[in-house]
Amino acid sequence: MVIGGGEVAASRIYHLLNANAKITVIAPTMNSEIEYRESKGLLHAVHRRQFQDSDLKLYEQTAPQLEKFDEEEYEKIDKYLRESRFELVLVAIDDPIESKKIYYKCKLQGLNVNIADVPPLCDFYFGAIFRKGDLQVMVSTNGKGPRMARLIKDKIADSFSDYEIDKTIRNIGDLRKLLRSKCSGSDNDSIKIRMEWMTKVTDSYTFKQWSDIDIRKIIEYFPKMPPSYDELKNNSLLATLEI
Amino acid sequence: MVIGGGEVAASRIYHLLNANAKITVIAPTMNSEIEYRESKGLLHAVHRRQFQDSDLKLYEQTAPQLEKFDEEEYEKIDKYLRESRFELVLVAIDDPIESKKIYYKCKLQGLNVNIADVPPLCDFYFGAIFRKGDLQVMVSTNGKGPRMARLIKDKIADSFSDYEIDKTIRNIGDLRKLLRSKCSGSDNDSIKIRMEWMTKVTDSYTFKQWSDIDIRKIIEYFPKMPPSYDELKNNSLLATLEI
Repeated sequence: MVIGGGEVAASRIYHLLNANAKITVIAPTMNSEIEYRESKGLLHAVHRRQFQDSDLKLYEQTAPQLEKFDEEEYEKIDKYLRESRFELVLVAIDDPIESKKIYYKCKLQGLNVNIADVPPLCDFYFGAIFRKGDLQVMVSTNGKGPRMARLIKDKIADSFSDYEIDKTIRNIGDLRKLLRSKCSGSDNDSIKIRMEWMTKVTDSYTFKQWSDIDIRKIIEYFPKMPPSYDELKNNSLLATLEI
Repeated sequence: MVIGGGEVAASRIYHLLNANAKITVIAPTMNSEIEYRESKGLLHAVHRRQFQDSDLKLYEQTAPQLEKFDEEEYEKIDKYLRESRFELVLVAIDDPIESKKIYYKCKLQGLNVNIADVPPLCDFYFGAIFRKGDLQVMVSTNGKGPRMARLIKDKIADSFSDYEIDKTIRNIGDLRKLLRSKCSGSDNDSIKIRMEWMTKVTDSYTFKQWSDIDIRKIIEYFPKMPPSYDELKNNSLLATLEI
């Protein structure tokens, strides 16, 4: 839930949408950015009025009981959590006294809160975030310099600009999956063999090489080490020539 | 709270201690690293037994009421939150079925949970973190490659190795404080003037220059722009010569 309808609230909403959140916004008036998101159907609910205490329980339902501990019961609870509880409460209003009141009301209900611009009244922070595929790099300066956080984030993003770091991570992730299906034991020995091989292989190539590597070739070598990047590439050339 | 006493639990505890957390550990046996931390008095409580449901309410007290909304009441609530509720529950045990049960029990009580190695059963992740002073850079690969996350974190740390980025951030933070005391208005115009000056000045020097700059000189120029880094340095040389 976002309480507030101004510029800061709009920026919160932007970040929440990036994280695929289901968003309820409450404020007497909304700025044009929020109205634009609303018109695009990106917001779950928009209430044009003052926040009231009962809003913290806006979607409250009776909690399901845990009795059988089976998948059906777990799914019911997932649904309940998704539909009836606020995961996060973000307050971005111009009234520090009212903000503090909301903070304590949330805390007594066990809700995670962030009061904009008041670090001590935050259970979590929005840092500057660089996101590419599954890679997320978050930069925080503990509130000391939000712009500096953004500049540092940009510098980090630049350092990944000459190759596709998201492919690097996708390849590593896919290789781990292949490895698990090739060596699927859940005993300690199997786990150890997998982990050690994966660690050594991860270290065998540069980030750039990983972004452009054929992992199906690499997994063939398990439990031996695969050869160098150049050899892998040459092998594929030879394979092509042999056809 | 940490449930588990093995290697992963020990690594969770390490990270929690870095964040100054108050930690309760529950597991039938503890590894030597956890025992070492215990012997140093770094852990709030260590229980050598199986986890039981009632542990989630181990420190439960009656919640104080919000009536007067004054500082005294807020302090009481802070104390209550600190002493009676678990902020985070970290599960690092070798039993996926038991882990899942614990996850759902926590969620029904509104507790934030992280089940090690099971990303879908996590309200938050431990990324690889580079920390220097107020700077924190967190790298996450959405669980795709924990080792890759660490390597990327190391690469980022390397890129800050030829100067003290923590001083960069401290100087920026201190300059913001000086600025607020020199131009303290809370009207929109004052805020705008401060923000625009701060943004331009932040962009005027490199990260390395910021780590080694005299901010008392810079604030003197407000609301004008301060000169280049070399001029600032030369001025201080002249000032020294004039003495």
